[in-house]
Amino acid sequence: MSLLIAFLTDFGQADPFVGVMKGVILSRYFQARMVDVTHHVPPQDVRTGAFYLMSAAPYFPEDTLFICIVDPGVGSERRILWARTASHQFLAPDNGLLSWLDHRQRLQEVREVTNRRLFLDRVSTTFHGRDVFAPVAAELARGLPPADLGARIHQIKRLPFPEPRRYAGRILGAVLSVDRFGNAITNIPVSTVPARAVFYFKDKNLGPLKLHYTAVPSGRPLAVAGSSGFAELSVRNGSFVETYGLTPGDPVEAKFR
Amino acid sequence: MSLLIAFLTDFGQADPFVGVMKGVILSRYFQARMVDVTHHVPPQDVRTGAFYLMSAAPYFPEDTLFICIVDPGVGSERRILWARTASHQFLAPDNGLLSWLDHRQRLQEVREVTNRRLFLDRVSTTFHGRDVFAPVAAELARGLPPADLGARIHQIKRLPFPEPRRYAGRILGAVLSVDRFGNAITNIPVSTVPARAVFYFKDKNLGPLKLHYTAVPSGRPLAVAGSSGFAELSVRNGSFVETYGLTPGDPVEAKFR
Amino acid sequence: MSLLIAFLTDFGQADPFVGVMKGVILSRYFQARMVDVTHHVPPQDVRTGAFYLMSAAPYFPEDTLFICIVDPGVGSERRILWARTASHQFLAPDNGLLSWLDHRQRLQEVREVTNRRLFLDRVSTTFHGRDVFAPVAAELARGLPPADLGARIHQIKRLPFPEPRRYAGRILGAVLSVDRFGNAITNIPVSTVPARAVFYFKDKNLGPLKLHYTAVPSGRPLAVAGSSGFAELSVRNGSFVETYGLTPGDPVEAKFR
Repeated sequence: MSLLIAFLTDFGQADPFVGVMKGVILSRYFQARMVDVTHHVPPQDVRTGAFYLMSAAPYFPEDTLFICIVDPGVGSERRILWARTASHQFLAPDNGLLSWLDHRQRLQEVREVTNRRLFLDRVSTTFHGRDVFAPVAAELARGLPPADLGARIHQIKRLPFPEPRRYAGRILGAVLSVDRFGNAITNIPVSTVPARAVFYFKDKNLGPLKLHYTAVPSGRPLAVAGSSGFAELSVRNGSFVETYGLTPGDPVEAKFR
Repeated sequence: MSLLIAFLTDFGQADPFVGVMKGVILSRYFQARMVDVTHHVPPQDVRTGAFYLMSAAPYFPEDTLFICIVDPGVGSERRILWARTASHQFLAPDNGLLSWLDHRQRLQEVREVTNRRLFLDRVSTTFHGRDVFAPVAAELARGLPPADLGARIHQIKRLPFPEPRRYAGRILGAVLSVDRFGNAITNIPVSTVPARAVFYFKDKNLGPLKLHYTAVPSGRPLAVAGSSGFAELSVRNGSFVETYGLTPGDPVEAKFR
Repeated sequence: MSLLIAFLTDFGQADPFVGVMKGVILSRYFQARMVDVTHHVPPQDVRTGAFYLMSAAPYFPEDTLFICIVDPGVGSERRILWARTASHQFLAPDNGLLSWLDHRQRLQEVREVTNRRLFLDRVSTTFHGRDVFAPVAAELARGLPPADLGARIHQIKRLPFPEPRRYAGRILGAVLSVDRFGNAITNIPVSTVPARAVFYFKDKNLGPLKLHYTAVPSGRPLAVAGSSGFAELSVRNGSFVETYGLTPGDPVEAKFR
């Protein structure tokens, strides 16, 4: 059975970039199965891309090949990587995009993609998605052994995960990402929060971590056990981000003294 | 032949929510066929979701399974429904999202989805799309008999369709929804409008219902027989919504005395 | 093997328009393979649609059928065309949307789509995508001979490609389109630019054409050899469009005296 190709990019869906990549893949391998994780990583925001990938990858079938492109260094000397965990494969620029996967699944094998015979005949310097990632993905989907991509490497660029700081009686975290509903996803794992902890955003007391949005009345803020395993700040039937004017990176505190 | 899974949600396409749901479905049933109706129901706007579903469902293949998620009550005690009409199947929260289907096709069988053995092992309280709807849809696509989902029920939550009011010589309707082109879709069925009726938005006379945008010069407003069977307010080569500053719910009148 | 159906429209993804078209296609031909080029051509902007189609089509498999809909004249007397180049097929309104394909691949056969037996039973005047394009595409994908669509025609509406003007020592071009990253795509083919040419946007000297974004420091503007074969104006790790406040149509100059 053919492997699934899953896209995670910052290309958006307005320009024909993604369509063209799919055209290239289908030109080489008409049977390819493809699915979009998202194309709306904020432009050139490698950290948000890394977070989305960490959150989403565990839910995909065994052996899915993720094409991951958030690539401000396209055309420079930055390398293109193929990597494998116990369950999935990845193509990505070597800029930290794969860093946070390790939180959940260890990279077992990494190769630099250097075999130009797999690329389109003319490789542009600004759209490697079309000229390199897409044809290489098609060949992998068709059964190309990963060893044919290029040599194994052992050092890749890593971005440290922004771990919350732990003190006696409090955890000092930060907002990692915001979603369409105006929820703020923090870096504080739900599993590390004592039941008696009370959440604070700036001076606002959000009370203890709730399990459901419906634990507070409509329009009220709360901290809730988010679906990606981290505490989230929300407003029931509203938008925390709009109500409290928050930005990724803003501090969030859980106090339990 | 496998059934088609069609998505209608308010998840947007920026966050990886939809991608993750598809990952879960493909993990359980790699052959699943999936198509997006839309993921851009305005956040938590059950009425617009109900309208889109009513308009779109008739155009899908026999036996399509619609995953319908506009779910402000996720994680609360609201039920999750499976329902069947003569032609289609639906999974949806019990919050009225299926209400307006009846306008076109009767719900013939409704069940509460309670069989937790079908769900993901860990069910979050904030993302039932991933943890409940997706795995249940995959099992249905693989051939699970609907009777295995849970017991039949006979009362579900209904939102009344906002029928226009009819008086001697006039129909008083309202704007149901607006589209990308700035057209305002009303609740006035084209089939109920006498040929001599003249449309008014606020004090603006839009003339009788036209069959084509091109019935008026470029830049001029008109009322037109819309593709979903309702009268629509448009500006030829322009945006009615931007030109006249309209909001869903605003009154629209057809006068024919 | 079934042909691929590729969509290029201005329908957006918020309204259920595209989902409904796919529903119609799958209702008639459940095995259809479909892929989105883009649905975000700016509303009613035929020229940008023509540019996207010219840029994207060469990367799609042999015999792909493109459904191209940017159609301000829907419902009027404008014709619907089926056309074929050496490699691809197209359905489009006769409004110039296919004009710029000729830049890369010649139209070899054009027919007017008039066979109403292929359409939905009730054809609306405002949504031919659903009622005409989708069912016709499904029939072509199932193997309908194009001759059954309607008679051959030899004159279609053409929009002239906005060729840059060439003078002694300079090329005077213009911005064709802008992309998500704030790059401005010009109409100046990279292959026609002498190596010594220096690019100017208004009074801003952007230096000679670069091959990589990384040829300038972060935050600096440059002219770069774009992936569609035209010179592009960019800001490294930034947005040219935001920085310089540009609009499609604005003049761009390459000087080499």
